[in-house]
Amino acid sequence: MQQIFDEIKINTKGQGLYSFTDKTTLWVSQQKITNGILNINILHTSASLVIQENADPDVLYDLKNFFDKLAPMDNKIYKHTTEGKDDMPAHIKSALTNNNLTLSIKNKKLILGTWQGLYLFEHRLEKHTRILSHHLIGD
Amino acid sequence: MQQIFDEIKINTKGQGLYSFTDKTTLWVSQQKITNGILNINILHTSASLVIQENADPDVLYDLKNFFDKLAPMDNKIYKHTTEGKDDMPAHIKSALTNNNLTLSIKNKKLILGTWQGLYLFEHRLEKHTRILSHHLIGD
Amino acid sequence: MQQIFDEIKINTKGQGLYSFTDKTTLWVSQQKITNGILNINILHTSASLVIQENADPDVLYDLKNFFDKLAPMDNKIYKHTTEGKDDMPAHIKSALTNNNLTLSIKNKKLILGTWQGLYLFEHRLEKHTRILSHHLIGD
Repeated sequence: MQQIFDEIKINTKGQGLYSFTDKTTLWVSQQKITNGILNINILHTSASLVIQENADPDVLYDLKNFFDKLAPMDNKIYKHTTEGKDDMPAHIKSALTNNNLTLSIKNKKLILGTWQGLYLFEHRLEKHTRILSHHLIGD
Repeated sequence: MQQIFDEIKINTKGQGLYSFTDKTTLWVSQQKITNGILNINILHTSASLVIQENADPDVLYDLKNFFDKLAPMDNKIYKHTTEGKDDMPAHIKSALTNNNLTLSIKNKKLILGTWQGLYLFEHRLEKHTRILSHHLIGD
Repeated sequence: MQQIFDEIKINTKGQGLYSFTDKTTLWVSQQKITNGILNINILHTSASLVIQENADPDVLYDLKNFFDKLAPMDNKIYKHTTEGKDDMPAHIKSALTNNNLTLSIKNKKLILGTWQGLYLFEHRLEKHTRILSHHLIGD
């Protein structure tokens, strides 16, 4: 059994879903482990991870819009307002989605459905560099 | 260390929660791995996975109802409407729950609480065959 | 490859987020595995797990408040009411957050961001003892 620890960085430019399927697929193909578990953790609490449809960009628009309505940027309804109107909604959206994705790797490929893509869901308005821990364990 | 890759199929007949605890429990008992991690991924983005109470069917009814109200089937509020009024709400409900469950296996048994069951949460109205990737890694 | 199975108990006193970062960090440091995956499962469906900001307690207040508004304690809107007005909302909040966290361990330390903490999210009003299964697999 071997283990590999690495990080992938994603630059975001405001709210929205950023695909990292290609980056992670490439990374997996370059490792010496053929079969195993890939544990991905986002090291932030104002951006999160989702597996979503990779076909119609309207799905990504509707997702962003849904979460914005569910946790509105309105300082009047939160106590935690010191980091900007987008910060507390970002923490809520993060709690509602995932900090962590655990994926299976078979023959150096991610096991994903045809229409599934990996997305970083950025919840802040400003630019950020987001770090995704990649930990692969297997043979 | 050994690894086993397999798939379990679940036939769904419209919206609702479908228990697969028995199927997965049986599958685990039939493998040669005694202790390890079972990584389950649903290969779809309009159905999802939850661990929920296995005792009172009313809980499952209320869950379905809650998510239906939260993400209503109303084409007027979404851009992605080409696949039917139930498709965009399905993607939202999928993002709000889980694509992936990572379970611990000890002595060929799932580590679950007494009242916990594994459920596929079908969000579409029509019949579907859903594929759950089962990847077991351990000794 | 080695595997260690254990449980950590958390006593809760009503709704809210209870940090267990220190307990799990200490536990990890005491095990004989240096690098691996730590799979944490909460063995209940009326309390859940989240990774959230560990800095400003107002974030925890706002999170609790948000989920209370989203899934109100109002028996009139649920069928499952026999276990008290807080039980069905607890199952919903559990479905919206996580039953399971899969963490990476490197050099006997959790891979977490600077501002990330591990929290048990108690959704019931009364005191409870909650069990968190800890399963570490690695070298």
